[in-house]
Amino acid sequence: MTSSFHPPQRTLMGPGPSDVNPRILEAMSRPTIGHLDPLFVQMMDEMKGLLQYAFQTKNELTIPVSAPGSAGMETCFVNLVEPGDTVIICQNGVFGGRMKENVERCGATAIMVEDEWGTACDPAKLEAALKAHPEATTVAFVHAETSTGASTDVKTMCDLAHAHGCLTIVDAVTSLGGTELRVDDWGIDAIYSGTQKCLSCTPGLSPVSFSPAAVERIQNRKTKVQSWFLDLNLVMGYWGQGAKRAYHHTAPINALYALHEALVLLKEEGLENAWARHAKHHNALKAGLETLGLSFIVPEADRLPQLNSVSIPDGVDDAQVRGILLNDYNLEIGAGLGVMAGKVWRIGLMGYACRKDNVLTCVSALGEVLGRVGVDVDAKKAMAATLSAYGE
Amino acid sequence: MTSSFHPPQRTLMGPGPSDVNPRILEAMSRPTIGHLDPLFVQMMDEMKGLLQYAFQTKNELTIPVSAPGSAGMETCFVNLVEPGDTVIICQNGVFGGRMKENVERCGATAIMVEDEWGTACDPAKLEAALKAHPEATTVAFVHAETSTGASTDVKTMCDLAHAHGCLTIVDAVTSLGGTELRVDDWGIDAIYSGTQKCLSCTPGLSPVSFSPAAVERIQNRKTKVQSWFLDLNLVMGYWGQGAKRAYHHTAPINALYALHEALVLLKEEGLENAWARHAKHHNALKAGLETLGLSFIVPEADRLPQLNSVSIPDGVDDAQVRGILLNDYNLEIGAGLGVMAGKVWRIGLMGYACRKDNVLTCVSALGEVLGRVGVDVDAKKAMAATLSAYGE
Repeated sequence: MTSSFHPPQRTLMGPGPSDVNPRILEAMSRPTIGHLDPLFVQMMDEMKGLLQYAFQTKNELTIPVSAPGSAGMETCFVNLVEPGDTVIICQNGVFGGRMKENVERCGATAIMVEDEWGTACDPAKLEAALKAHPEATTVAFVHAETSTGASTDVKTMCDLAHAHGCLTIVDAVTSLGGTELRVDDWGIDAIYSGTQKCLSCTPGLSPVSFSPAAVERIQNRKTKVQSWFLDLNLVMGYWGQGAKRAYHHTAPINALYALHEALVLLKEEGLENAWARHAKHHNALKAGLETLGLSFIVPEADRLPQLNSVSIPDGVDDAQVRGILLNDYNLEIGAGLGVMAGKVWRIGLMGYACRKDNVLTCVSALGEVLGRVGVDVDAKKAMAATLSAYGE
Repeated sequence: MTSSFHPPQRTLMGPGPSDVNPRILEAMSRPTIGHLDPLFVQMMDEMKGLLQYAFQTKNELTIPVSAPGSAGMETCFVNLVEPGDTVIICQNGVFGGRMKENVERCGATAIMVEDEWGTACDPAKLEAALKAHPEATTVAFVHAETSTGASTDVKTMCDLAHAHGCLTIVDAVTSLGGTELRVDDWGIDAIYSGTQKCLSCTPGLSPVSFSPAAVERIQNRKTKVQSWFLDLNLVMGYWGQGAKRAYHHTAPINALYALHEALVLLKEEGLENAWARHAKHHNALKAGLETLGLSFIVPEADRLPQLNSVSIPDGVDDAQVRGILLNDYNLEIGAGLGVMAGKVWRIGLMGYACRKDNVLTCVSALGEVLGRVGVDVDAKKAMAATLSAYGE
């Protein structure tokens, strides 16, 4: 007979899920209560405040969608886009492609603005597209491309979009809690993220936030939102203000306990401190990886600290190395995605996983394994470079 | 500063979430591993087998959707229905209405076959609708209406649908694990359920299963599924056979640990034993409630053991009584939904909550509280009737 599943204790340094803080796992196992219980409703209100802090926004409609980041993305598109609309998507990786799928499945037209994978989205190209498509209503792009580790200048992009009368949809799945992100200051109208990256939480929920202009558009749609489950006009009735909540769907109670705890942890650390921590450990990891001869694919200026994409050395078997790391070190690093498959490793330093012990483990394990598969590396020197970056 | 949330230990006897088995809460807090980890993929395969057992099906496409039951419902409709289709919906409660919303948001026409709330769906009415609408492609109805506690004869309904060339979509959110349900024997083509009812698990996932005929329809659609997140053509790539899994979305790892444990528990108990347990405790609860003067709204033949809807006595303040039960007894019972709001209480006996101690707690607490708010009840006699039903 099938028995209980007992997972091993991995170190998660891929593109997410990342290591979960034990306090969050413990919170998740607290007793389940009802989704309309007055104490649960009180926690929901706290959660909104904590999410507003994490997103740096005053947006009233700031909630977690009861499903993973992909559903958060879909929430933004199905609510803000109507059939016949034109949406400009700036793509520099896998997730821009997923945005296109979303737009087209809404019966709208996607105007694609392409940038090379591994670079930031180019505001000049966006501006040209906005001029060429005055009918566009919405601009969408990814802040932190999880497939490459490239960061885009959100504020400049949003300013351009607004100057042309468009609302903005921004993917912050990998940035929230890891690098600077300011929803209100930067003019983001709709944003979605995930819990399993820099928030150190288990996967399964998608924090989202909508500006007053976005809410106005949602409330004045000509057509119904095509998804009943993700229709914010209905979801708002459950996550709305005050004690009176209308049942929409049964909230994932224990997953929300976990997210609440993750957000409490973020507030305890302080957002700026969390951003600084990601930068600090990235610098040490970078020193080690580069000394091992691994080169970053993203230009330094556009590089995310929490997602480190490095080229796989010639002749090295991608899957073999990741397999050894997993089996011998319980260490997970990420494979390449899309056109990057087999060409890069994605090494995450996200949330609770972004720690000195993980950086040292990763550099030493990679040094040993690369040597084992025949790459000429100086593992000792790489470790010295890493420690030196920590000032040791 | 906002601090950790510590929920109370409630007894959950509403329409769900129901009490979660402590083994499941513990499983949920096990270490998170990657969604493409070979050990996780192995667990996914086990999960499919366990779900096939729970659903009594050999359907290959038997998986949990990474979101609550409402998303499971939407998964069935957006995958099986295309714009311009005609779908017959037999409605006898709230959730038939939600099915209508789903159908219409797919750009299809919903033909509504109405039955009185609190009764089963009438096969004769379905047959008449099938004859009147030869263009219909699909028939949908609820097996166990959570809003009323009425059960519908699935096999008869499915036989009729098939005789008229329709596929069937069945809502089993409240039935799975609680009462007899046989997907293959009864001819169900698409079914969805929830984790937070008779499976004793935390809310947040929706087990679904699709027959070969349903899969064939999905693979031969003329239009793309309108939801990217719920598109089974893509989801199958992640939940497919063998070791090679394509990334679609990040699975809610820890929630899946919980569901796996819930299904292991169900297999340990045995499906027929679980059904018998629900029937046994229902009979005892019924004896107690009726002795308290509370009458069931569903005719005995159509009554679900796991969801007991009883009329609120004249002059009794619904919210006041539920409030006292929650505050003084930590006992949650459910309010009425839709047209039943304020008129009925819904008392759940689902999964781990379906136990003798809960039945006795509920009868004694309700007896005391009804007396406290001025109803003339004989609480002692009600308890005696309950114990007598247990053979004591």
